[in-house]
Amino acid sequence: MREVAIVSAGMTRFGELWESSLRDLFAEAALEALAAAKVDRLDSIVVGCMSGGQFVGQEHIGPLMADQIGMAGVAATHVESACASGGVALRTAFLEVASGASDLVLAAGVEKMTDGADVTAVLATAADQELEAFHGITFPGLYAMIARAHMQANGTTEEDLAWVAVKNHRHGALNPKAQFAREVKLEEVMKSSMVSDPLRLLCCSPVSDGAAAVLLCPLEHAKRYTDHPVKIRGTGLATSTMALADRKDPAFLDAVQLSGERAYKMAGVGPADIQVAEVHDCFAIAEICCIEALGLVEKGAGRHAARTGLTALGGKIPVNTSGGLKSKGHPVGATGIAQAIEIFEQLRGGAGARQVKGARIGLAQNMGGSGASSVVHVFEGV
Amino acid sequence: MREVAIVSAGMTRFGELWESSLRDLFAEAALEALAAAKVDRLDSIVVGCMSGGQFVGQEHIGPLMADQIGMAGVAATHVESACASGGVALRTAFLEVASGASDLVLAAGVEKMTDGADVTAVLATAADQELEAFHGITFPGLYAMIARAHMQANGTTEEDLAWVAVKNHRHGALNPKAQFAREVKLEEVMKSSMVSDPLRLLCCSPVSDGAAAVLLCPLEHAKRYTDHPVKIRGTGLATSTMALADRKDPAFLDAVQLSGERAYKMAGVGPADIQVAEVHDCFAIAEICCIEALGLVEKGAGRHAARTGLTALGGKIPVNTSGGLKSKGHPVGATGIAQAIEIFEQLRGGAGARQVKGARIGLAQNMGGSGASSVVHVFEGV
Repeated sequence: MREVAIVSAGMTRFGELWESSLRDLFAEAALEALAAAKVDRLDSIVVGCMSGGQFVGQEHIGPLMADQIGMAGVAATHVESACASGGVALRTAFLEVASGASDLVLAAGVEKMTDGADVTAVLATAADQELEAFHGITFPGLYAMIARAHMQANGTTEEDLAWVAVKNHRHGALNPKAQFAREVKLEEVMKSSMVSDPLRLLCCSPVSDGAAAVLLCPLEHAKRYTDHPVKIRGTGLATSTMALADRKDPAFLDAVQLSGERAYKMAGVGPADIQVAEVHDCFAIAEICCIEALGLVEKGAGRHAARTGLTALGGKIPVNTSGGLKSKGHPVGATGIAQAIEIFEQLRGGAGARQVKGARIGLAQNMGGSGASSVVHVFEGV
Repeated sequence: MREVAIVSAGMTRFGELWESSLRDLFAEAALEALAAAKVDRLDSIVVGCMSGGQFVGQEHIGPLMADQIGMAGVAATHVESACASGGVALRTAFLEVASGASDLVLAAGVEKMTDGADVTAVLATAADQELEAFHGITFPGLYAMIARAHMQANGTTEEDLAWVAVKNHRHGALNPKAQFAREVKLEEVMKSSMVSDPLRLLCCSPVSDGAAAVLLCPLEHAKRYTDHPVKIRGTGLATSTMALADRKDPAFLDAVQLSGERAYKMAGVGPADIQVAEVHDCFAIAEICCIEALGLVEKGAGRHAARTGLTALGGKIPVNTSGGLKSKGHPVGATGIAQAIEIFEQLRGGAGARQVKGARIGLAQNMGGSGASSVVHVFEGV
């Protein structure tokens, strides 16, 4: 298997971007990534998008996007894994380069969520249609159940959840691409309206438009395109049951653990080696569960991590320095690539005010549904 | 890059399968493929499906299907390229095995189209939403324009189109899995109702439910699972403009040509080496255009191929021995895998009454939209 590197990145601002369509968003991010590497040709494009069909009436996303950037002809593939679509796109592109089939592959993610679709209903199609969605439950409800189970098992409190939001907004306030680039106070979070008990509005990620793209090539070619490439050392993809009720412990995200183990094994590292991480905080409770499942903290200890500063900038293992899904925004198909971009910048010293000093090894974890799919990548600055 | 083989296959009957849901269809095909190879574990699943979201309110197809066959945990990826989703799933699975990342990968395709969705409107989301679908054109209209352009350039007649249907139904009559396993007469086709001038009902593929799956592994492991593996010698994926009107010649499918050239090059063969082929006959005119673009006949000569028997069973280069999309049915996400299965069986001597004697090298070509994406695989019996 060939070694693979990321050599450039491009990303739109995340937010309610009324002036930009699905294809506009993709093109902005893709062309920025191509320009940064001074590249005007590609062998292949892999695009993550959860549901162009339901959100904006557009399937066949691969060729559409190739055409939109003037590259009709190039190979193009669309992958979907709900909110993990971006991370799975990165993995698919990685395997294409690793196999030797392609040398220059753009891995991108995009979603246009604010064009009038019933967003909560569309997102609910990522749950089990027969066992969950049909009966009316949506994702705030599913994650509220995860939160309740975590509270019961570990004594987690509403305030523990709120601290995750406070920390991630503090990070996001330093990110000019973030949808909500501003700090929030603990009491604001605790007083925000209840969405699905115990999850309050400020513990939930927003509805967003946006796109992100990274350019991959064999590591041995990387210096042609940048002085500071970042190597993809490991990839891990795993699944769990679709329905939350089918899991032994709803507060433990087994697909996250399994995807992490696979990525660590391939990378030849362990959780203790990770110096900066982006994890899937679609709801505050998700960040707590994810850092536990990835072994970044002990099982049951995740509830303390944000409050004590362990996972804050300046802490032992900064998590979601980008602001996370919570503050940066969550255009679902784009999220996994945006996470990879944050780690890419951190490992090449390009994260500006959010820079984790001396970070050399980092991780991005992207999740679909209530944890039925999870994909982890381990990166190293070279 | 590792060499890759198909070692087993499974497939539902194609048709209006009222008793089976999306997940039921997948499981039937997947479990048949696993049983045939006596395998009870997988490293990864790649599923092609055009639009679970729009057809049956279900996204997140990868983990759902892993869960449905009792394999929650395994890596699972869903790919979409409209009606080429199955072919792109095969390619994605091929690259995963070729890379060395996985040893046992199930490549599957599935679609459930008869559950009440407005099928023509859903399929139209594979066209360009802004330049085509928004203005009301659907695929029968787009292919009718391709047919008119082909008629104007080459003198193609309605009867030439009808002969494609007659030939493919003659083949499909020998296929117990086909949706319309019966012959049709030329005059029946010519008298069938006009769908979109010059395309009559019997020149259009039907609306179908179905699933298909093949098991891939490194060629060097193949004999563990079967005495008659089939090697994947080449894969080629290409795109064209999304909108038909943006192409220089609407009657020439340039993505089909390009995907074919890429697959031939990788396989080290040319069109003259192909002994049996499945091509994407969603409408009769598509088969004519595809065999021309793939170089199986001269440009402009495609119109004669079915009538003269060149592409019939017993002819020089039998095309769509399965019955094609026309007679076998076209559950869009499943089609590309079903095509691969027909060639798999032909190259291992398992095609029964449809067997092409002594076939050693074959090809499958699967297309999305009005030809905005096309994927070709070249296979060899070993």
